[in-house]
Order: sequence, then C-alpha cells, then structure tokens
Amino acid sequence: MNKISENRSFGGWHRQYEHASAVLDCRMRFAVYLPPQASVETPVPVLYWLSGLTCTDENFMQKAGAQRMAAELGIAIVAPDTSPRGDGVADEDRYDLGKGAGFYVNATEAPWSKHYRMYDYVVNELPALVEQEFPVTRVRAISGHSMGGHGALTIALRNPERYVSMSAFSPIANPSNCPWGELAFTTYLGADREVWKGHDTVELLKTTAARIPALVDQGSADSFLAEQLGTDTLEQTVAATDYPMTVRRQDGYDHSYYFIASFIEDHLRFHADHLKAAQ
Amino acid sequence: MNKISENRSFGGWHRQYEHASAVLDCRMRFAVYLPPQASVETPVPVLYWLSGLTCTDENFMQKAGAQRMAAELGIAIVAPDTSPRGDGVADEDRYDLGKGAGFYVNATEAPWSKHYRMYDYVVNELPALVEQEFPVTRVRAISGHSMGGHGALTIALRNPERYVSMSAFSPIANPSNCPWGELAFTTYLGADREVWKGHDTVELLKTTAARIPALVDQGSADSFLAEQLGTDTLEQTVAATDYPMTVRRQDGYDHSYYFIASFIEDHLRFHADHLKAAQ
Repeated sequence: MNKISENRSFGGWHRQYEHASAVLDCRMRFAVYLPPQASVETPVPVLYWLSGLTCTDENFMQKAGAQRMAAELGIAIVAPDTSPRGDGVADEDRYDLGKGAGFYVNATEAPWSKHYRMYDYVVNELPALVEQEFPVTRVRAISGHSMGGHGALTIALRNPERYVSMSAFSPIANPSNCPWGELAFTTYLGADREVWKGHDTVELLKTTAARIPALVDQGSADSFLAEQLGTDTLEQTVAATDYPMTVRRQDGYDHSYYFIASFIEDHLRFHADHLKAAQ
Repeated sequence: MNKISENRSFGGWHRQYEHASAVLDCRMRFAVYLPPQASVETPVPVLYWLSGLTCTDENFMQKAGAQRMAAELGIAIVAPDTSPRGDGVADEDRYDLGKGAGFYVNATEAPWSKHYRMYDYVVNELPALVEQEFPVTRVRAISGHSMGGHGALTIALRNPERYVSMSAFSPIANPSNCPWGELAFTTYLGADREVWKGHDTVELLKTTAARIPALVDQGSADSFLAEQLGTDTLEQTVAATDYPMTVRRQDGYDHSYYFIASFIEDHLRFHADHLKAAQ
C-alpha cells in the first residue's frame, strides 16, 4: 500500500493510497479521512462511502464537506473507487457501464467477471486492509450516493453482522426495474432476474430478517428521480415491511453534491449514534 | 445575464450565470450563493471570493464547504472567474499566465490590455451587476485564495470605501518579489516596478491610511510558502505598520481546498461581524 497524497483537514488527515487488489486483480486507489481522535490508543469506527456513476475516491472527499463532522464526531471515512481500473480492465464507451460503474456486484458474465468484483472488494478486502493499516475499530457503517447508495444499502442488507447502520442519498433503490440497473445487471450478472434480487434494495428488504437502522435522503428536483431511482417503491416496501428506514424527501434538491453537502451532517450524526452504541 | 445552472444548497441556492462583460470584452461566467434569508424585503450583504491560479467560479463553490455558514449567517457569496475567457482572448501555454491567471489587475501591455482587466471587473462591473440583479445590499466584504488572496487584499486596500473587511488564504502577499508575481506583473503591467506597488499587498500596507479589518490564514506545509507567498514579509509589514490584520500560521496545512474548508467558517464569521455592523 502506497500513500500517494495527503492533506491536513479539520485537524485530521485526508490521504489517498494505492494498492494491489487481489480480488479485483488490478491496482486500486482509495481515500481515507482520519479524524484527529484516531490513534493506536484510541481507534475510531469507520464509515464507508460508496460513490455514484463516473466518480472516483475524490468526489466525496472534495465536495461533500464531511470532514468537519467526522472530526467532531471521531469517525474515519473510507471512500473506494467505483470500479476496477487499468488498461487491462474491460470497459464500454459509456458512463453507466464499465469503468466508473461497477455497481458493487461480483460480475459473473464475460468479460466482466475477471475484474468487476466490487462487492467482494468493498465487503471484505478493503475493510481487512483498512483495519490492518489504520487506527480504526471493526465497528462499521456504510453510506453512498446514487449507484453508491444502492451499493451501501444492498451490501449492509446482505451483511448485517458487519454494519451497525446504513444510509444513502438518492439511491438506485430498485435497480431491477430501472434502465441503469437493468443494463448493469444484465451485463454483469446475466439475464436471470432471480439473481438480480440479491442486489436490489427493495427485494432484499422484503426478505431480510435483519433490522439495520437506515436513513435515506432524496431530492424532489432530482432529474433521475422518475426514471431511475425507485423511491416510491422503496417507501412502499419500507412501510409494508415495517423496516426501520427513514426516507426523507428534500424539497427542491437535485442529484448533485450540493444536495449531499446540505445533509451530510445529519447522516454522520445518525451513524455516529449507532457506531458509538456499538463500540 | 443568463442562468446556466442552479442547485439548492443549505436551504438557499447556488447558481451560475453567464453575461457579456463590457470591461473584459468577452462573455464571462460567475457563481452566486444566495442564502435562504435573501429576499427583496430582506437583502443580504455579499462576500466576494477570488480564486487562485487555474480556477474558475466552480472550485470554491464545490470544495470550500462555505454554503453552510453563509446560510446560517445570511451572507451571499459571489465567485467570479479568474481571467477573461474565450477564443479571442490572449493566452499562454502555462498555468500561471493568461487564461486562469488574470492576477486581478488591468493589463497595460499588448496583447493583454484588450481583455485582461480583472481589476475593473471585480471592483466595478461585477458588483454593479450583482447589486442590480440579486436581493443584496451594497455592503461588501472580499476574500480569496493564493492569487485570489492577493486580489482580495489589494482590491480592498485600494478601495477601502467599498469593503468592510478583507481576508485571504495563502495569499501571494508580495508579488513584486516572487516568481509568479514578477512574471505576471512584467507581462501585464510592464517593467516599471513602481507601477507594481499599486498591486502588491505589502507595498499597499506601507502607504495606506485606511484600516480595513483583515484575517489571513497560511498553512505551514504549503509547498508554495517559501518561494511564492511572502508571508514573512507580510507579517513584518503588518507589525511595522500596526495594521489590523491577523495572520495565522496553521500547522501542517497545505495550499489545497482541504485547508480552505477547514477554516472557512472562521473567515465567514469574521466577515459577518463586520458586514452586520455596517448594515
């Protein structure tokens, strides 16, 4: 693992690292924010942040304004990239498939299955590395935006023993029933819609016995709301299953990081309550 | 003036506009953040933010995390671009001269003098437009980063009747004596160093009778500190002139927006105190 940049931020440190990922079979970059409280004597819990289509580790760290509250609350934040990277990695000349669009699944279809295993990377390989290298505990929460909101919710729902809380901004909540999700799942997972259910928040909510506290924010002026995000279906499923998820509609907000920045404090405080209770 | 984007942010609005600048003789883009308090009945004061080399109106609005405090304090923020733009505008194939590097002066040398009049644009044309089009008062403060810190301090010092307070992050405080400044001033203003003094914070501090309250933050790990910024000279001049400027050295911080984001709240609170006293 090589440190490739660092910036002091709110008394802590933002750092970028590069490492060889065995799971993804390529070199990967990720970012970590370590709050001032983090030390070997006082390790801190970790919030994993999963970004959306076209993003890297940088978008959230540069634009969300999360470090202020992370420093105040004593939470580390880890932001992976959104797909495998490198010259040998399969790609498509579009923003919603291939590089920058890993969808946090393990691809089973050629040529994607060689590298596109973001699910295993986020669930297992990256946390193991983070917990080995940094002064952090094994108490974890997870959040994300859009494709990354889908990733955060599905990964937590499939691994309730690994996360104390989950949240999302503008998640692709029902990817089995929207253009982005149908394209990605057909391409990465094949045509069997039963398989897709294992990576669909709405479908997982219907069957899970676990109860992970969850917070979702969705802007009313989000240009992807009607076609891609499935928020109505998410709300109906939450109500039908009595799942402990608060879904908030935020009037006038769009799909951008201006929206995320406006409400990231609420998400960090929400996760902090659960992270501290689990310490 | 055409609105080209808008995003709801902390209950207010971030918007980008394009307009024909008579002073710069080209089309220009700028950004404005209007806090929720801004209305025709309750106009708000304005903080002008001047960005550094290579930046546009976007860097500060996306990365500084300023909207949260601007919304809380009821301050609008206006961020112009850093140079004239467009195909017909003179340029050099380098980051520290030409487009993205206007240095907030009125160029007198060919071919720059046709468009590079960022001083007049920031002092007169842009505020006149802003005060005509938005629900703001004529109470103004000014701040900036690096080249924009230079711009903010020199513009306020030359126009004390127009600004109630000034601040800067990592300003080029003594451009007459650093490589960035010597290149830009030679190119835009010519070889006469007496002329340069009119756009050099350290030189202006020595001669001004005005006393504009000022706050400057400078990171100790700033890679440009030794060669470009002149902070030692600034501190010595502030002490020798008993100028009301607080210069803070921030241990471990660099030249990036991670530094700005860490201390922007202090700057907004500093300006708010003076803006509100002047309402």
